Amino acid sequence: MGEKVKGKLIIIGGGEDKKGKCVILRTVAELMGGESASLVIVTTATLKSEAVEKEYIRIFKHLGIKEVKPVNIDSREKAADQKIIDIIKEATGIFFTGGDQLRITSLLGGTPVYEALYRCYESGVVIAGTSAGASAMSDNMIVEGKSDDSPKKDAVNMAPGMGFLEEVVIDQHFAQRGRIGRLLDAVARNPYILGVGIDEDTAIIVEPEGIFRVVGSRTVIVIDGRGITFTNVSELNENEPLALTDICLHVLPSGFSFDLKKRRPLIPG
Amino acid sequence: MGEKVKGKLIIIGGGEDKKGKCVILRTVAELMGGESASLVIVTTATLKSEAVEKEYIRIFKHLGIKEVKPVNIDSREKAADQKIIDIIKEATGIFFTGGDQLRITSLLGGTPVYEALYRCYESGVVIAGTSAGASAMSDNMIVEGKSDDSPKKDAVNMAPGMGFLEEVVIDQHFAQRGRIGRLLDAVARNPYILGVGIDEDTAIIVEPEGIFRVVGSRTVIVIDGRGITFTNVSELNENEPLALTDICLHVLPSGFSFDLKKRRPLIPG
Repeated sequence: MGEKVKGKLIIIGGGEDKKGKCVILRTVAELMGGESASLVIVTTATLKSEAVEKEYIRIFKHLGIKEVKPVNIDSREKAADQKIIDIIKEATGIFFTGGDQLRITSLLGGTPVYEALYRCYESGVVIAGTSAGASAMSDNMIVEGKSDDSPKKDAVNMAPGMGFLEEVVIDQHFAQRGRIGRLLDAVARNPYILGVGIDEDTAIIVEPEGIFRVVGSRTVIVIDGRGITFTNVSELNENEPLALTDICLHVLPSGFSFDLKKRRPLIPG
Repeated sequence: MGEKVKGKLIIIGGGEDKKGKCVILRTVAELMGGESASLVIVTTATLKSEAVEKEYIRIFKHLGIKEVKPVNIDSREKAADQKIIDIIKEATGIFFTGGDQLRITSLLGGTPVYEALYRCYESGVVIAGTSAGASAMSDNMIVEGKSDDSPKKDAVNMAPGMGFLEEVVIDQHFAQRGRIGRLLDAVARNPYILGVGIDEDTAIIVEPEGIFRVVGSRTVIVIDGRGITFTNVSELNENEPLALTDICLHVLPSGFSFDLKKRRPLIPG
């Protein structure tokens, strides 16, 4: 976490409630400034941008935000478009929808739009993302990998993410798709990265000082591999099963926090 | 692990290979005595006993065991049948098939057949079980619980198992059905029990001195909750998400062992 960063991140495990109390999206709306927010919805991850835009515009307007602007950056050409950059510059919040995280990074990486987004974040704008938009938040990103599978070599493909959150790898739809095997593979590759698996309808809110707080109805699993005493990951061929000993795991529901610098959970109250 | 016990346990996570190299079932056959083994197949867990019997008879005969005797104990009356007890007394190995683990414990628990099985185990007979037959091995048994779900209060129903393996709770089809959430719930209830999640086509062989060794194509996850520093399990209502900090987790593939008394993994070589 750079000391210059003032923005907050809201990283949602996908499947956030859109019909009931909308706890997570309501929190997103409030943190972005509520009624006076200027929210930009980035649909780059999805090929169904119209339908996705429509849904989030409806919800965020319902939650009280008057100014909701979708931008559909579906090419690298558009990722250099000054009109889009100007819209982003005015935002108090950015929301990345779901879809395919590799679309986000391959279309936005190294472009003027990405630079504008990062400057927004540094200056205090709230950056939120759900599902693919969550995965793309960290510097190390899971591109894809089989769900409901054993921990094994090359269970996931990885790529550099948007880098808003450093030394972390995010996974989403975590319990609902049985993804601990693939997150263990990601952490095993270099245990300096912390694995954060976020369930559906669950999110972490990351404050500039490097502490995240859990909101939503389910849990976040933190996988800390610093204490790993044995690993075979470098010796295996693709798909061979991993051996890892002494992994530290935390299960955190709403109200609990985690200090990313100290790598310690914070118990409420 | 009682000091009087001489038998081995072979606890299989279900879905063991029955067509290829049959690594696990071949190990079962060898440990039971190979050609000269007397194998009793217990199909109590399943309602399709005939089909299941037929399949395992075919495989174990193919693997060289000449004497394979199925016993279909489908009532408590049969669990007192002297003819069945006499068959069990002659066994060098017992194999529990899959199905519903609650059928095993509710039909055999407290019966003369169970006593005969336990005496066999004490005297050196190999006891194997797959899927439901694996779950029933330990003293604490997971009866049922949702797969691919977050760690939450009452994620599983538990019951006393056959008690061959003490201070352990087994789960099977572990990665393939996304069951870490429910095993965390089981361990959270009383962290003195060790959670052992066994993948499909993977097994542990438990030696009398309390050391198990992994065989098969995937992994075993051991969840050690002794070091848990915070838990909210006693404060929650049903289905509320758990908070658990500082769980120790090990991922063990074939060739790796685990000392159940010291709760430490053993690295080969």
